Amino acid sequence: MTNAAVFRSLHDPADPLVLANAWDAASARIVAAAGARAVATTSAGVAWAHGVRDGGALSRDAMLAHLARVVAAVDVPVTADVESGFGATPEDVAATLRGVAEAGAVGVNLEDGAGPALRPVDEQVARIAAARAAAPEVFLNARIDTYLRGVRDFDGTVARAHAYLAAGASGIFVPGVVDPDTVGALAAAIPAPLNILAGPGAPSVAELGKLGVARVSLGSWVAEAAYGVARRVAQEAFGAGTYTSLAGAIEYGELQSLMSP
Amino acid sequence: MTNAAVFRSLHDPADPLVLANAWDAASARIVAAAGARAVATTSAGVAWAHGVRDGGALSRDAMLAHLARVVAAVDVPVTADVESGFGATPEDVAATLRGVAEAGAVGVNLEDGAGPALRPVDEQVARIAAARAAAPEVFLNARIDTYLRGVRDFDGTVARAHAYLAAGASGIFVPGVVDPDTVGALAAAIPAPLNILAGPGAPSVAELGKLGVARVSLGSWVAEAAYGVARRVAQEAFGAGTYTSLAGAIEYGELQSLMSP
Repeated sequence: MTNAAVFRSLHDPADPLVLANAWDAASARIVAAAGARAVATTSAGVAWAHGVRDGGALSRDAMLAHLARVVAAVDVPVTADVESGFGATPEDVAATLRGVAEAGAVGVNLEDGAGPALRPVDEQVARIAAARAAAPEVFLNARIDTYLRGVRDFDGTVARAHAYLAAGASGIFVPGVVDPDTVGALAAAIPAPLNILAGPGAPSVAELGKLGVARVSLGSWVAEAAYGVARRVAQEAFGAGTYTSLAGAIEYGELQSLMSP
Repeated sequence: MTNAAVFRSLHDPADPLVLANAWDAASARIVAAAGARAVATTSAGVAWAHGVRDGGALSRDAMLAHLARVVAAVDVPVTADVESGFGATPEDVAATLRGVAEAGAVGVNLEDGAGPALRPVDEQVARIAAARAAAPEVFLNARIDTYLRGVRDFDGTVARAHAYLAAGASGIFVPGVVDPDTVGALAAAIPAPLNILAGPGAPSVAELGKLGVARVSLGSWVAEAAYGVARRVAQEAFGAGTYTSLAGAIEYGELQSLMSP
């Protein structure tokens, strides 16, 4: 099987695909060594690693150059978070998808939130159709940002899911919802692999699988935890002048062995 | 004062300069927001972020492009870890120093270990002299790798320090030694700011200052702690399918606010 076919086959509620999202080549290698069956990037973490905010500050070229390094760093399939597609038009989204495929990734997340609002359904359908035409083999995970933005509109979310699938989406990602009843109802109403964003307070992977979830992502949480430790270490060193927050570090020699010679 | 003059003035055992070394623009901004008076890079962390090993795997151009992003990310002075100088000849070291100065950094760490051995003193003296001539304003922290490599040669270390200072070094870095008697003796014998590598088991910053240490670095430890959390989060998510290792994460909105808009 190709990496793309392998990746597609991993979407199975009986054994959900768990993605501990990476933001650089090091975290990708570490996550892969920890047993990842696939590596997903987090657009937030990637933007932060460049010192800029998530949501449009990073250029497409910078994202793609970075993605190519992540793909080169691991043997497992890589799926890329491409925010809302890097541009105002469907042609822009198509160019992004061609770049992602050229970089060697086998999937994308494409979100329908843009700036302060959700895109109208028809507009997002056109973008998804352009993405699908530009990269026929890519697993196109269509993200619906209703719940993430506090819009708890079940029927509207399901309607978007059906429209996005008809336009060529491979799967549906609804971040911002973790309550079991809603998750289970979404899985029952959406005829494609459902991706849920997990993290503190979310049901376990096994519980999400029983609800019909095929894919569980940690989104920007892994990067947020890693940078959280960096802050605690700095605060302690600048404050008390001690170093106990370094407990749990991977030692130099072991990190060296995890990287490419 | 210029950033270079500010950086030089921070080397004071009465209030040692503490460097919680950064490896990307995000960690640089986080460390700066935590109160860093200066930001130092860690060559190990920078190499790992690119998916490769510390010690010669990263190209000079990749290091310099990355350094420019770190410098652009923060307002405080930045000092760059340039490993052993990126090249076999003193001219190579000079080219590296010119690049560092052009990238806007105000200091470098230049080590005398190279591959499996220490460089002969005369060879390292020639490299330091070339570095000094290429970048007259840069704070040139000459790293002596005797103790780091298990060579507990006090007299040889002090002799190297004197030779390196005569060639133009601004300060001396002796990683791998934290026992108070040796640290105090090194500070007394070296007529320039002494830098010690701290971490688990090392004396506190205040104790190191009392011993005469002007600068305390965490080296690759901060990156090792951050990537350690990433591994624990992944192992937990792939294993138990839960997310408790995310405790201590910086939340999305707060990390966004720490980054450039």
